[in-house]
Amino acid sequence: MEIDSLLPSILKHSIICKIENEKFYIHDRRKYPFENTYVECLNIEEIASAIKNMVTQGGGPLDVCLEAMYYLSLFKNVSLNDYKEAIEILSNSRPTNTTMKEVLEGFFIKIKDMFKSNTFSSKKVREEVDAILNSFNEKYLKMAKTGESLIKDGDGILTTCFPEHSTLLSIKLAINNGKKVVLYVPETRPYLQGARLTAPSARELGIPITLITDNMVANLMRDKKINIYLTASDYYTKEGAIVNKIGTLQNAISANYYNIPYYAFSLKSRIYNKSKNEVVIEYRDPKEVKQIRGIDITSSNVDALYPCFDIVDEELVAGVITPEKIEKN
Amino acid sequence: MEIDSLLPSILKHSIICKIENEKFYIHDRRKYPFENTYVECLNIEEIASAIKNMVTQGGGPLDVCLEAMYYLSLFKNVSLNDYKEAIEILSNSRPTNTTMKEVLEGFFIKIKDMFKSNTFSSKKVREEVDAILNSFNEKYLKMAKTGESLIKDGDGILTTCFPEHSTLLSIKLAINNGKKVVLYVPETRPYLQGARLTAPSARELGIPITLITDNMVANLMRDKKINIYLTASDYYTKEGAIVNKIGTLQNAISANYYNIPYYAFSLKSRIYNKSKNEVVIEYRDPKEVKQIRGIDITSSNVDALYPCFDIVDEELVAGVITPEKIEKN
Repeated sequence: MEIDSLLPSILKHSIICKIENEKFYIHDRRKYPFENTYVECLNIEEIASAIKNMVTQGGGPLDVCLEAMYYLSLFKNVSLNDYKEAIEILSNSRPTNTTMKEVLEGFFIKIKDMFKSNTFSSKKVREEVDAILNSFNEKYLKMAKTGESLIKDGDGILTTCFPEHSTLLSIKLAINNGKKVVLYVPETRPYLQGARLTAPSARELGIPITLITDNMVANLMRDKKINIYLTASDYYTKEGAIVNKIGTLQNAISANYYNIPYYAFSLKSRIYNKSKNEVVIEYRDPKEVKQIRGIDITSSNVDALYPCFDIVDEELVAGVITPEKIEKN
Repeated sequence: MEIDSLLPSILKHSIICKIENEKFYIHDRRKYPFENTYVECLNIEEIASAIKNMVTQGGGPLDVCLEAMYYLSLFKNVSLNDYKEAIEILSNSRPTNTTMKEVLEGFFIKIKDMFKSNTFSSKKVREEVDAILNSFNEKYLKMAKTGESLIKDGDGILTTCFPEHSTLLSIKLAINNGKKVVLYVPETRPYLQGARLTAPSARELGIPITLITDNMVANLMRDKKINIYLTASDYYTKEGAIVNKIGTLQNAISANYYNIPYYAFSLKSRIYNKSKNEVVIEYRDPKEVKQIRGIDITSSNVDALYPCFDIVDEELVAGVITPEKIEKN
């Protein structure tokens, strides 16, 4: 695939998951970059359980579920009902991932057609999976080209969490076009996606990057080191607000204070989406706040709180980059 | 001392440092709260070196230097020149601590008088040290009473780093006056003073606290959980800007965005202070950003940056609480 040369290894489909000797392997992002290991799965249940246990995250579960559709086709005497059950199990492995659910539901219709017309085969399933992967790659590239057009030579770019294809591809294209930029990456506590995933991925792509802690963002903005703020999005509300990893909001507020534009990426337009008032923010186990990579950082009797996502209100968003265009408020 | 019952153990002078069997002991804040240990020193050079190595921090070095003045008086045949040298060595152990330097210089004048009038004795030095400690405690209490008056029943209070006497005393007084409050403590990376010092200290004082990561502040403000933002200050510029630990600025910007007042504490009025344009922000070893408690959080080839302090411009500061009054812009 053309896009592969522009992506860091952990975003390549062939790295995210693979089938070898009738076993399914998922790249373990929890241990990256300290270890480059895979979790072995022998059936759909084990794949779903790996997704549930955060072996992969972000766009990873979508890649895994699509490849699992092909994996299932390799089993003997697989039936339409097997697919139905598999899609249900996989969709429930990450209920907040609406894209994954929609893609799997769409896939089921294709599979149903194959069984109906008696054309079901591993080869046909493989083609179907590749077609979907390619259509996503096309959308990623379209968004990245728009992202690239917003980046100026000499820019300092801020991101948050692991922005996957959107921001990293945009910056890679900008560098390929001769623009000199620096990417500032907040570590993104508690899970450290910035430090563990974004920073090594950017290094791998030859993007000059500087890792910072999550409390240094405004300091760098006051120092005029940052000119643009780009993130992925977990949800894009009908008002134009962005739901994304914790920390996205306060970076957007600081950006707004220093007149730095904030753009998010979204595969879909907001027109069919629900309101921000219907978005329920997930609270996770506060134990993660009290530890870093399993090491205690405070005394055991201290209470903690772990809101997992921010809602960035629309007045803080300069625009949202979809495959078609930049949607502005 | 009256104030002791209102302070957490690590802020009590008798815990910060002590003399036992002719040895000088400094409480090791680097290991707190995981270990409650002391660093043993046998002379002024070793005390200065412990301060340099961050065994104690914040107001700790001032307590240590004052007690070291008494410790020196216990040595045989101590001379005025010994004091001169000791004060020079101790002042240089933390050049950014201007209060400590001023207090030591003032102390030298007293010592000189004692030698001149032939009244030098350990007992007289002890009285002088206690008088200075008491005068600081009086100032802390005055500031805390003002701080207390700004806290309303039901408030969520945000702080940053380890705000020592100022914020903790204010909240303790508020609770003693029957006000129900919650203190939100950002962990304060990279050194984790919030998680390691503030959270356990607040717990010890019976202050309800919630530990968060540094990127959760705006999320809680949007959720109306925070009503007031209180911090200590490392420097208070003549314009009314506050220099304080990294992270103070972006919390102040978020507070400003949500109309939450930000007050800092300062022992001194700004009238004799220098301009913010003369403040040089210290950059420390970026290795600290790439590690947490000695554990790597990213790959070794990633670059990092560690600006240690923020300058919070005066338009973000609602007022500064000095022992005399609240100074407003």
